[in-house]
Amino acid sequence: MLDQAKGVYIVAQTPFKENGEIDLDSVDTLTDFYFQHGASGLTVLGVAGEANKLTQAESVAVAARYVKRAQGRPVVVGVSHSSVAQLAELTALVMDQGAQGVMIAPPGGLRTEQEVLGYFDAVFKRIGNVPVVLQDFPFSTGTWMSVPIMGELIARHAQIQVIKEEDLPSLTKITRLRALPGRRVAILTGNNAMFLPLELGRGIDGPMAGFSHPEMLSQVYALYTAGKVGEAHDVFDRYLPLLSYENQSQWGVAVRKEVLRRRGAIRHAGMRTPGPRLDATDHAEIDRLLQRLARDLKDAG
Amino acid sequence: MLDQAKGVYIVAQTPFKENGEIDLDSVDTLTDFYFQHGASGLTVLGVAGEANKLTQAESVAVAARYVKRAQGRPVVVGVSHSSVAQLAELTALVMDQGAQGVMIAPPGGLRTEQEVLGYFDAVFKRIGNVPVVLQDFPFSTGTWMSVPIMGELIARHAQIQVIKEEDLPSLTKITRLRALPGRRVAILTGNNAMFLPLELGRGIDGPMAGFSHPEMLSQVYALYTAGKVGEAHDVFDRYLPLLSYENQSQWGVAVRKEVLRRRGAIRHAGMRTPGPRLDATDHAEIDRLLQRLARDLKDAG
Amino acid sequence: MLDQAKGVYIVAQTPFKENGEIDLDSVDTLTDFYFQHGASGLTVLGVAGEANKLTQAESVAVAARYVKRAQGRPVVVGVSHSSVAQLAELTALVMDQGAQGVMIAPPGGLRTEQEVLGYFDAVFKRIGNVPVVLQDFPFSTGTWMSVPIMGELIARHAQIQVIKEEDLPSLTKITRLRALPGRRVAILTGNNAMFLPLELGRGIDGPMAGFSHPEMLSQVYALYTAGKVGEAHDVFDRYLPLLSYENQSQWGVAVRKEVLRRRGAIRHAGMRTPGPRLDATDHAEIDRLLQRLARDLKDAG
Amino acid sequence: MLDQAKGVYIVAQTPFKENGEIDLDSVDTLTDFYFQHGASGLTVLGVAGEANKLTQAESVAVAARYVKRAQGRPVVVGVSHSSVAQLAELTALVMDQGAQGVMIAPPGGLRTEQEVLGYFDAVFKRIGNVPVVLQDFPFSTGTWMSVPIMGELIARHAQIQVIKEEDLPSLTKITRLRALPGRRVAILTGNNAMFLPLELGRGIDGPMAGFSHPEMLSQVYALYTAGKVGEAHDVFDRYLPLLSYENQSQWGVAVRKEVLRRRGAIRHAGMRTPGPRLDATDHAEIDRLLQRLARDLKDAG
Repeated sequence: MLDQAKGVYIVAQTPFKENGEIDLDSVDTLTDFYFQHGASGLTVLGVAGEANKLTQAESVAVAARYVKRAQGRPVVVGVSHSSVAQLAELTALVMDQGAQGVMIAPPGGLRTEQEVLGYFDAVFKRIGNVPVVLQDFPFSTGTWMSVPIMGELIARHAQIQVIKEEDLPSLTKITRLRALPGRRVAILTGNNAMFLPLELGRGIDGPMAGFSHPEMLSQVYALYTAGKVGEAHDVFDRYLPLLSYENQSQWGVAVRKEVLRRRGAIRHAGMRTPGPRLDATDHAEIDRLLQRLARDLKDAG
Repeated sequence: MLDQAKGVYIVAQTPFKENGEIDLDSVDTLTDFYFQHGASGLTVLGVAGEANKLTQAESVAVAARYVKRAQGRPVVVGVSHSSVAQLAELTALVMDQGAQGVMIAPPGGLRTEQEVLGYFDAVFKRIGNVPVVLQDFPFSTGTWMSVPIMGELIARHAQIQVIKEEDLPSLTKITRLRALPGRRVAILTGNNAMFLPLELGRGIDGPMAGFSHPEMLSQVYALYTAGKVGEAHDVFDRYLPLLSYENQSQWGVAVRKEVLRRRGAIRHAGMRTPGPRLDATDHAEIDRLLQRLARDLKDAG
Repeated sequence: MLDQAKGVYIVAQTPFKENGEIDLDSVDTLTDFYFQHGASGLTVLGVAGEANKLTQAESVAVAARYVKRAQGRPVVVGVSHSSVAQLAELTALVMDQGAQGVMIAPPGGLRTEQEVLGYFDAVFKRIGNVPVVLQDFPFSTGTWMSVPIMGELIARHAQIQVIKEEDLPSLTKITRLRALPGRRVAILTGNNAMFLPLELGRGIDGPMAGFSHPEMLSQVYALYTAGKVGEAHDVFDRYLPLLSYENQSQWGVAVRKEVLRRRGAIRHAGMRTPGPRLDATDHAEIDRLLQRLARDLKDAG
Repeated sequence: MLDQAKGVYIVAQTPFKENGEIDLDSVDTLTDFYFQHGASGLTVLGVAGEANKLTQAESVAVAARYVKRAQGRPVVVGVSHSSVAQLAELTALVMDQGAQGVMIAPPGGLRTEQEVLGYFDAVFKRIGNVPVVLQDFPFSTGTWMSVPIMGELIARHAQIQVIKEEDLPSLTKITRLRALPGRRVAILTGNNAMFLPLELGRGIDGPMAGFSHPEMLSQVYALYTAGKVGEAHDVFDRYLPLLSYENQSQWGVAVRKEVLRRRGAIRHAGMRTPGPRLDATDHAEIDRLLQRLARDLKDAG
């Protein structure tokens, strides 16, 4: 299943009510929104999903709601945790709820490749036979993985079925990952899809990224895989100013949630504390970027 | 209560069975061992307590068992977590079990004092009126706090009743913390007590540290506070070679657990994976250091 | 002088010959290229200028050549160094050569605001009365500075005449810097100008950034300051795909040098080792992006 | 020569005058002091030698003076630098002055083993056939090297003749380094010699460390290599309280320089700014530790 992943996995937000509680009704509307705009699957409880602000029970509830609403379409759940025990526990709980697999990034503080290998030996022994997306996101985790060590992990652990690649530069790393001998795994790319058409040119199987306009991701993917490379770039470039604006770490997540709110996908845009809050100037910038996007889309027909 | 903390808080290990399960019976024997060797209180589920390898349920079970066996003597529980929600949840659970208070260190990735202040604003709002030990352990957390920012935290949050100081050098920082205006908080020091007698000279209220021979900590504390400074140093120096050997991060924890096992305080010495394992050469070094200590204690009468 | 900096400071590359030697002739052609495309001034020997691969004598030679060719137009020279002594020595040498000022970022390893203040106290005492651009680039240096601490530095050190702001998100930080009480300093922004029109909306005085097409920077600046905000965004958006492609750290610098070579600004594109090298796939991506840019510029008239 | 290094390499301080200038006369007296107390060789301009506060000319002058005064006895010079060009330039200059070899640690920011290998490929190509001490000091550099990657570096680069090992825990790493197949290199250990007798038991060739009482290092080395293991420990333990007090990073260096001043080895104890300064409380602690040491040495005869 997961090892044949392709298409558009949207990295989903976690919606909150004004009082900071989880907004499960908005999970439903957001799920519908993502699939209506071309998602092949969802990745929930990632970094952009504010996973590290939830209790375990909240995490399970959010994952379960996404799975239920997705009605059989794939949902991958982020379970990265500094505690292998808590990672394993959450993995079992969300797999029970029907997740397609889990996404795991190494924790910070792994300082040599020996330590990376040792960490994943412990993880994979503990979680058992669960399909895994290995997330390579060093600027967030603080732990770097070279291409050879990622090849070694793939060789050791049959559970790894997808690489979520978001090191920078991603392009050359994708080429080197694709040149690895041995078992083929899917490669999906993150970094908010900032390099999506070029990454498709490097041989990825699709994006695994968040964006307030997921229709861009699905259109670019569809055009590119249909051989319409120029058209794929054209669509991508049209959204790039907004995409880049959302590509500002947690502050970008605040922007994305606000745009999703404006589009009716969720009821409230706020992030859980501690987290950024938008002010009037920020809103005015969003206004401008959305107006310009609307104009460009209209011009393009 | 906690704001008048003084004496010897032993940083407790978490005992495991050979199969990696929590060994609650050894919690009992270890608790007895600590108090028989002069502990005033215990600090459980710290870094040396392998807290980040447990599930939440395991953490609560360990804390509860320590509290129960301590029979009213104070037990502080480490609750640091990258998720404020999980930190708050665990805090409530262990306070329900009778903990005297909780110990909190800032997570890694807080990059300015503004971010440190923002983080603790969120934490203290969420946990409510719970006595807190603020842990300053930057070499482990990766987040540094200056003396002025610690003063600001003390001023903002009445829940902070103790500073666990283990920045390096600790000595000058203790002097500067003691010179802060405003509300007095207790200062207990960690770093495996490597500088205990000098830290007592700088005005701390006692150690909050782990050692396989807690009688050293209690003797040094008793002698020093009785004005017998030279004798305090004499006792400390006698144990220093072993103390230093245990002061090797997680590998030192493995040594400490082995020595505690040899002394009958716990049944098994192993750490949960991923973690270091001792081999024959390591055991021979421990043999040598313990034999030398026994000789020196005998010579000293 | 420098405190009234405004306009477009181009962050200049350091050209090398095929054998790795400095290519001073290309410094001349590149200087001409920058000024012909609208530069107000240059910033040489920054991170993108491979400063940390040069000897001191090479650094002075490069700076001197840029200053000479600039014929009186301003040249700022990066002098950041882990050694305050070497920083001060290089500062004196390049000021002697006619630099308008120097750019200084804090070294890595400053862990509290107290340490940041102490570091700059030592620096400014040592370099004397030299105009300084304070560079805030934490993702490169590893040292974060909050807005209040930057205000304190400005208050303490009259030499600071410009802030080069390239923290992320830059937008909110610019607004907060502009709201600081006290002496006004110029704010120029880096991050490869990825947010230039919005940053102009936040009140900056111009970009201090590198790009293979500096005419974009100067056009955007001119349009924006003439009140033609929409047109400024239009120009910016046209170049954004290439700009983003160049915004990939040292790998992006390799791309930029290759494009500058294709445009005739320098003779050789190579970076000094250790550094990235482009292959055929990379060149094909550059081809595509340049062709698309040419088409879009033609379409826009 | 260097590949047969054994014995006691003292990590030397750099003496300054009260006004912050280099004190070359104190280099002479300090050199004499080290050799009178049993040094086999010296390592100058390391981290504890405040190397990163000097200009290149000052570095060369200090190294040259040490070499001259050493009169043929070996002097290794630290040349680590973020710029390979400056590293290579300084290497050539100090080898011209008669250094036995240079010591190189990787700079911070090397994030994978591939990057470590690439960095050293560039370094060794550039410096040519110069004997090198590879310094493994990750807590200072921020770059971690596993045992296999160190083996690979030794295999690739014949210039590596000594490993200065100061990762923690050092003991198990020494055992694993000694078990590497291939060419034997000497292993000398740093970390202020905090684990010297046990490290000798693991098969090192001696210490490469600084201490205000180098006679301890040479006595421990002589006793241990003469088979008098217990006596070696006895001597070591006697000095351990002071050794540990000096083992506090740059603050410990300030202490060490003060004790060296009191012993007549240098004229002034001050460190260059930015750096710690001792106050009356610090001096009183030093008084106490020296008095206790004197008493213990007297008791031991």
